[in-house]
Amino acid sequence: MTINQQILLDNRPTGEAVASNFKLVSSPIPELRDGQVLVRHHFLSLDPYMRGRMNDSKSYAAPQPLGAVMIGGTVGEVAESRHPQFVVGDKVVGMGGWQEYSVVNADEPGALRKVDATRIPLSAYLGAVGMPGVTAWYGLVKIIAPEAGDTLVVSAAAGAVGSAFGALAKARGCRVVGIAGGPEKSAYIVNELGFDAAIDYKMHGDARSLSNAIKEACPDGVDGYFENVGGGVLDAVMARMNAFGRIAVCGMIAGYDGAPLPMANPALILINRLKVQGFIVSEHMDIWPEALNELGTLVATGKLHPRESIAQGIAAAPEAFLGLLKGKNFGKQLVKLC
Amino acid sequence: MTINQQILLDNRPTGEAVASNFKLVSSPIPELRDGQVLVRHHFLSLDPYMRGRMNDSKSYAAPQPLGAVMIGGTVGEVAESRHPQFVVGDKVVGMGGWQEYSVVNADEPGALRKVDATRIPLSAYLGAVGMPGVTAWYGLVKIIAPEAGDTLVVSAAAGAVGSAFGALAKARGCRVVGIAGGPEKSAYIVNELGFDAAIDYKMHGDARSLSNAIKEACPDGVDGYFENVGGGVLDAVMARMNAFGRIAVCGMIAGYDGAPLPMANPALILINRLKVQGFIVSEHMDIWPEALNELGTLVATGKLHPRESIAQGIAAAPEAFLGLLKGKNFGKQLVKLC
Repeated sequence: MTINQQILLDNRPTGEAVASNFKLVSSPIPELRDGQVLVRHHFLSLDPYMRGRMNDSKSYAAPQPLGAVMIGGTVGEVAESRHPQFVVGDKVVGMGGWQEYSVVNADEPGALRKVDATRIPLSAYLGAVGMPGVTAWYGLVKIIAPEAGDTLVVSAAAGAVGSAFGALAKARGCRVVGIAGGPEKSAYIVNELGFDAAIDYKMHGDARSLSNAIKEACPDGVDGYFENVGGGVLDAVMARMNAFGRIAVCGMIAGYDGAPLPMANPALILINRLKVQGFIVSEHMDIWPEALNELGTLVATGKLHPRESIAQGIAAAPEAFLGLLKGKNFGKQLVKLC
Repeated sequence: MTINQQILLDNRPTGEAVASNFKLVSSPIPELRDGQVLVRHHFLSLDPYMRGRMNDSKSYAAPQPLGAVMIGGTVGEVAESRHPQFVVGDKVVGMGGWQEYSVVNADEPGALRKVDATRIPLSAYLGAVGMPGVTAWYGLVKIIAPEAGDTLVVSAAAGAVGSAFGALAKARGCRVVGIAGGPEKSAYIVNELGFDAAIDYKMHGDARSLSNAIKEACPDGVDGYFENVGGGVLDAVMARMNAFGRIAVCGMIAGYDGAPLPMANPALILINRLKVQGFIVSEHMDIWPEALNELGTLVATGKLHPRESIAQGIAAAPEAFLGLLKGKNFGKQLVKLC
């Protein structure tokens, strides 16, 4: 009998998330029923949104239940099938969770999608050609809606969303400036990802200093900002927004551990007639095909080739996830499972 | 020779605006040149936006110059004309400023507009059928964009913008709840303006208490909020916004005196996928005809009949304006000039 190693949410964080919030267990794989598919996961995706699900409070979605397998995106291949549209060996993307195998009711809309792993590496479907890429696309195209020549800024620029944002913005003729942590990531987003400029937020102790750095990198001001971070970074960018600027709020990672971080000067929303809009990409499934098509082309043609941080084996997932929350990853954080 | 009494901005406020920031002067009225019209003002409009113009900092628009007549909307009648489209006795609305007469270059687009004072009282063109009314219309129709059955909240509900907002929202089949200061204003917006409920913010010492009152008045949550105030009121309403709620930011009167007021929990923008958008109505002249048409019909048919606070004589303008900033007015604040 095949054994499936799984990671459960064992208890909820009080403040910072820690490794002991998780628990590794082994379970037998149940027999398939009609319509089900067994997927052997190749990669698990780790993403900041998972931190929000660990809390018991109101968030985007229902909290992650205690004692259940942590949710998460996965790519893999079909290991067994009792569904007519899937055969063994098919490469598939789904929400298999933090485990080595998943049993999927393949008739559920969106549960399992076959993908082409010849033009595009399988892992990319969890990053640039997956949820993070579509997230960048939605915020850019549907909220920021830039014109060629606009100056755009993205925080957490070296991450999966940020790297896709940079490529999509460059494809639209924008100047794109990334905020990242440390000299390595700053060099990476300019030299490998093609950003026009990088700002290392770790060089700046307060919002004023960071704001001055943004002014230097954005001499014409900021027309659009893609927010992955919140807190002092948001304050610093807001101070540099042009009239009619748009801020797409995708993440507030800085506030996940409990204490809400205030926005220093919301009157800027009025003074500069800003639009500040939060979104979650899974609520906009209608735009996924168009977004994935553009992102897939960028990856297949080599215009978007972000780095990946790959942890080995399911047992490594908690530490890799906690590192992600602290910005230790370099590019898309994955766990390789086989 | 006719003497024109005028109020100039003499010096800028440091903190709270005070009467000594203004100066009353008397000037002769110059002779008209071709294309000019002399308007005798009947009413001057006092509006919160004027406080922003008194500062020397970046705001919607250029600061009010020192030593110049304070800007402001006016209605009056043509006293002399050297413009073919205006004759003596025409009722007109314009931006004549804080003075008894103004000389207008009537060819400048938007400088002077003839109005019908038979169906609609002349003073209403400074309130419900003027800039405040159109302000309410823009925020409601273009930013909040409600559906029938939505619950909407407006702060400073007894004021010129708030009262128009209430009538426009009711006309669209919405539940509309007003936040106002004091029992009199609260009773007024329900009994005379037709709001579904009123919340007296002075009864609530902190954002949590106010937020509980909002919950009670809005059992289905808040779908749209029209913000005239900022500060703790904004925090309290934000905590009650439904998913996909829209906040039209029209005023942050609470922050005019210098110290920026933070937004306590901007993560709610993400958690509830809110849209928060600032605007200034003079940048959207294209919608004025449609808005004025609807507002004029509401007033002419008696569906919108807000109270007015009327100060007598130009010398009373500064105190009336300072009272407006403190919420002492009841309905649209005007100064009667003749």
